[in-house]
Amino acid sequence: MIDIDDSPITRNGNSLILAYDHGLEHGPVDFEDVPESANPEHVFDVARHDAVTALAVQKGIAEQYHHDYSDDVNLLVKLNGTSNLWQPDDFYSPLNCTVDYAVEELGADAVGYTLYAGSDYEDRMAETFRDVQEAAHRHGVPVVMWAYPRGRGVKNDKKTGIISYAARIGLELGSDIVKCKYPGSKGDMEEVVRMTGRTKVVMSGGSKRSDRAFLSDVHNTVAAGGNGLAVGRNVFQREKPTGILDKLEGVVFEGKGVDEVL
Amino acid sequence: MIDIDDSPITRNGNSLILAYDHGLEHGPVDFEDVPESANPEHVFDVARHDAVTALAVQKGIAEQYHHDYSDDVNLLVKLNGTSNLWQPDDFYSPLNCTVDYAVEELGADAVGYTLYAGSDYEDRMAETFRDVQEAAHRHGVPVVMWAYPRGRGVKNDKKTGIISYAARIGLELGSDIVKCKYPGSKGDMEEVVRMTGRTKVVMSGGSKRSDRAFLSDVHNTVAAGGNGLAVGRNVFQREKPTGILDKLEGVVFEGKGVDEVL
Amino acid sequence: MIDIDDSPITRNGNSLILAYDHGLEHGPVDFEDVPESANPEHVFDVARHDAVTALAVQKGIAEQYHHDYSDDVNLLVKLNGTSNLWQPDDFYSPLNCTVDYAVEELGADAVGYTLYAGSDYEDRMAETFRDVQEAAHRHGVPVVMWAYPRGRGVKNDKKTGIISYAARIGLELGSDIVKCKYPGSKGDMEEVVRMTGRTKVVMSGGSKRSDRAFLSDVHNTVAAGGNGLAVGRNVFQREKPTGILDKLEGVVFEGKGVDEVL
Amino acid sequence: MIDIDDSPITRNGNSLILAYDHGLEHGPVDFEDVPESANPEHVFDVARHDAVTALAVQKGIAEQYHHDYSDDVNLLVKLNGTSNLWQPDDFYSPLNCTVDYAVEELGADAVGYTLYAGSDYEDRMAETFRDVQEAAHRHGVPVVMWAYPRGRGVKNDKKTGIISYAARIGLELGSDIVKCKYPGSKGDMEEVVRMTGRTKVVMSGGSKRSDRAFLSDVHNTVAAGGNGLAVGRNVFQREKPTGILDKLEGVVFEGKGVDEVL
Amino acid sequence: MIDIDDSPITRNGNSLILAYDHGLEHGPVDFEDVPESANPEHVFDVARHDAVTALAVQKGIAEQYHHDYSDDVNLLVKLNGTSNLWQPDDFYSPLNCTVDYAVEELGADAVGYTLYAGSDYEDRMAETFRDVQEAAHRHGVPVVMWAYPRGRGVKNDKKTGIISYAARIGLELGSDIVKCKYPGSKGDMEEVVRMTGRTKVVMSGGSKRSDRAFLSDVHNTVAAGGNGLAVGRNVFQREKPTGILDKLEGVVFEGKGVDEVL
Repeated sequence: MIDIDDSPITRNGNSLILAYDHGLEHGPVDFEDVPESANPEHVFDVARHDAVTALAVQKGIAEQYHHDYSDDVNLLVKLNGTSNLWQPDDFYSPLNCTVDYAVEELGADAVGYTLYAGSDYEDRMAETFRDVQEAAHRHGVPVVMWAYPRGRGVKNDKKTGIISYAARIGLELGSDIVKCKYPGSKGDMEEVVRMTGRTKVVMSGGSKRSDRAFLSDVHNTVAAGGNGLAVGRNVFQREKPTGILDKLEGVVFEGKGVDEVL
Repeated sequence: MIDIDDSPITRNGNSLILAYDHGLEHGPVDFEDVPESANPEHVFDVARHDAVTALAVQKGIAEQYHHDYSDDVNLLVKLNGTSNLWQPDDFYSPLNCTVDYAVEELGADAVGYTLYAGSDYEDRMAETFRDVQEAAHRHGVPVVMWAYPRGRGVKNDKKTGIISYAARIGLELGSDIVKCKYPGSKGDMEEVVRMTGRTKVVMSGGSKRSDRAFLSDVHNTVAAGGNGLAVGRNVFQREKPTGILDKLEGVVFEGKGVDEVL
Repeated sequence: MIDIDDSPITRNGNSLILAYDHGLEHGPVDFEDVPESANPEHVFDVARHDAVTALAVQKGIAEQYHHDYSDDVNLLVKLNGTSNLWQPDDFYSPLNCTVDYAVEELGADAVGYTLYAGSDYEDRMAETFRDVQEAAHRHGVPVVMWAYPRGRGVKNDKKTGIISYAARIGLELGSDIVKCKYPGSKGDMEEVVRMTGRTKVVMSGGSKRSDRAFLSDVHNTVAAGGNGLAVGRNVFQREKPTGILDKLEGVVFEGKGVDEVL
Repeated sequence: MIDIDDSPITRNGNSLILAYDHGLEHGPVDFEDVPESANPEHVFDVARHDAVTALAVQKGIAEQYHHDYSDDVNLLVKLNGTSNLWQPDDFYSPLNCTVDYAVEELGADAVGYTLYAGSDYEDRMAETFRDVQEAAHRHGVPVVMWAYPRGRGVKNDKKTGIISYAARIGLELGSDIVKCKYPGSKGDMEEVVRMTGRTKVVMSGGSKRSDRAFLSDVHNTVAAGGNGLAVGRNVFQREKPTGILDKLEGVVFEGKGVDEVL
Repeated sequence: MIDIDDSPITRNGNSLILAYDHGLEHGPVDFEDVPESANPEHVFDVARHDAVTALAVQKGIAEQYHHDYSDDVNLLVKLNGTSNLWQPDDFYSPLNCTVDYAVEELGADAVGYTLYAGSDYEDRMAETFRDVQEAAHRHGVPVVMWAYPRGRGVKNDKKTGIISYAARIGLELGSDIVKCKYPGSKGDMEEVVRMTGRTKVVMSGGSKRSDRAFLSDVHNTVAAGGNGLAVGRNVFQREKPTGILDKLEGVVFEGKGVDEVL
């Protein structure tokens, strides 16, 4: 068993995971608005902010860059992912890095895996997740599930019942943290949190929005008993990532309201 | 070889397995009537009842909760399972936990596996069950098969001939206990029991019914030479689980009749 | 290399394998005429007869019963098999037991495997048989192939040319004994025997027939240079299995004619 | 690296491989003209001829017979093969014997593998060949590729360009010897030899022909820089195999012309 | 982590990889114009040129030839590849050599793998690349990805956005060097280089062109911050490979302009 509250990727029980896998998942297009965001060095610099409890990257970026930032940045190796050039018949994401390699060679503080409940490949992904989860816990490293209900079996992935079901799967299959879509309100997030028991819940940052809209969802998540967020574009597509991170720090770790930090 | 009568999951040769995998198999909808049943702590508390010889849960719930209840609750790790978001072309259930992990890391007293005889995936599941069964017995841990005939090859899974065939498969493939649907009468259950030889038979609780209807089936099962039941919703969807467990204890372990315990 | 004549499953070079896998392959329906045949204890008792050189059962029955009969009954673990609830698109039979488990945990004196030459799954089965054969011989245990030509590539599995081809495959792939259908006459069986070289040939008992018809085929098999039979229903679907076993002993091991034993 | 000229399967740099896998590949029909050819003992006796540098057989025949002939016959275990009862959708040939088993248990001096370039299964076969080649070379045992272009991607497998491409694949993937169809003339064979570099080339014997026609192709092969032949039916479907082997010895190993040996 | 600048396959940070896998990928047709190019000895001799930092060949050629040239030629074992006889439904390339074999038995200084982003097999190839990359880095050997976007998901593989996306995947998945198509201009190459961060970029030589056209692209690549090229036909399909290699040495390693070297 992992004591997630003892892990460096949490702070006072909550987490802010800076996610930087867009180069693989979306490609150069995601870096167009803020060109320097294509440079992993820029993103690692941003991740030095105290608000960031972990930086989530794919294996290659971890291997080539993290050693220069290891004193300041906790490493979450995102183990699966795929390009959007790929056109599969339903959602799947191959394992690009083994847990052994992530822990032994890359020095991962945590690992992440996307599971598409409802996809035709749910079974194959559950079997891969099994091995990821067991290897990680045997190494004493926590597992974050990107709990994304998608595919042929999912008509609407914004319904609270679907989000909370996917989050519950995270608990049932052994995740320490689940990352899920914000279900739309504090009340709905409470339902998600209630379904995940002792597994922590972080909301997904999603596409770029205004500070207020974004921070309001984060605040509701924490107020509902959730544990923070995993965020990419809403940080590094901003001109001054430090500004939004300062605000997030207030909301996620210091109990501040949205108006207090804006 | 396992001496199942020496296992903590039997008591005087019989078993009452409290099954709690609904969060994965059915999702939040199963917890609507009794909201506290969504909380694994509540269910572990219920499982402390002397009538319960094992609590069957998925890996994640075992890992996060069982250590707080290990003095009072015997652990049966259900190794496979899947969400109902998934829409496979025939019945299948992926292995979410290895036997090694269940025994070495989770401290399982027993393991469980669902096999869908008659499904297009019967072969794949039989091959997985082979490895589960061998690993479990090498660890000295008994195996419970959820013997569910289903899929393209099964027109009617309520026929005694089908139920007893699936139960016989449990014996042939090396299960210590098979869980099967109640076939409708004491006479039919005798036929099932006759087909499973030295493998024990427990009936499946099924959906929630009245105390009398439910207990009558359990009593017939035991009277037919069966060995108890695996039950979920008929316990934790009741307002007072203790009440029904008291009654089940009488029927399953103390040789009492239905009228005696009602 | 295995010296099959040194194996306990042969006696003076010949074998009588009592096959009892009907509970898996056919289900309860096969036990209807002689209800006690559903009980493995009954069948193990029958197998104590001196004429029986091995009892062929699936893993689960081996594991739960053989230890009570190990002084008197040689164990052949049938490693694959499947229910007839299953409706595959062509013939296949999954491996339900590994050789290591059969030998190390179950104490198998021999192992058996069905190979469907001509099925769309011939390749997959040949690859599995490879591993079975190698593991068994490394353990010093002989391998019996149920050589059943079947499936999309086989129009008529009663032709001598097809039967002898399938039997030859048994030799080519490394079987110590092949079990094949009786090809209809002593002359045809001589052709089968000629094709299998140093691999032994036993005929398949098939469905229940009169003593004379059945014994005549067995006698022709032995007279043709074959090595006995594997039989299930023609023994245990008889009211007095001992009677037919006495007669088979005469024909298979003592060189007697059919009239002598009837 | 293997020094193939140091291997017992070559003599003065050339090879005559007697191939005897017809019992698996073609079945009893191939033995009709010369019935004794069905008997492996007969074929091993023939293989004692000094002209034969290796006898190529499947695992089972190697295991049951070679020990009686090991002083006189070098063993090439043909690792894959399949029956012609099988009706796959494109050419494939499963691995029936592992390299470890062939070398450690059967005492193989060399191993052989058929690769169907152009088949839909070329990828799967290339991946299997990879493991075969690496295991064999780690054991110090040479690898012979049956280089047969076939399947959906191959319109005409008699064209020199196709034969030489398949032979080149043998070099690229690490074969010590490639066996390929005779391309029709000495000049064409020179092209094949030129494409295979340091990998040796032996022609395939093919179906039975007159001594002169057959020996002429063999002579052209050697004159073109090729290294001999692998032959089955043109030897053992002859009444007196010794006669043709005497002649082949002259042509392949002693530099004699066709008229000299006829 | 690999320090690619310490690897023998780079010189002053740049690389010129002579690629010689045409015998497998294209067959004899590629050797028609310069027949001696069919002979690996000729190509190894060419590779002795100081400009060549590595020769990329398949396993078989490495194994049979490299030992004669190991003092002068650095070896890059290209691990996957396939014939163009094969007609798969989308792009795939099987692994023909394991990393362990390449490093331990062949003495590889580097390994190469083609990944087709956008193919239906992207997932399978990413999973294979994962194991290749991890095994290579655990051996201390750098990995070159042939980053070729192709298949059902790729409409135009000449667009800079597609080339740079594929190159970025090389960084994300852990390549030390990516080989990609020249995107058409220095400016476009700068975009590719910007996307690959600390991973080096070499352009693909492509089909044979004039010295000036070819060298101009190479010069633009280096001027854009790229690190050289991987080239086959533009060297060995020339009558005097030494001439073009002298010029490439100037451009890639000595900072010369195109006019200086022509």
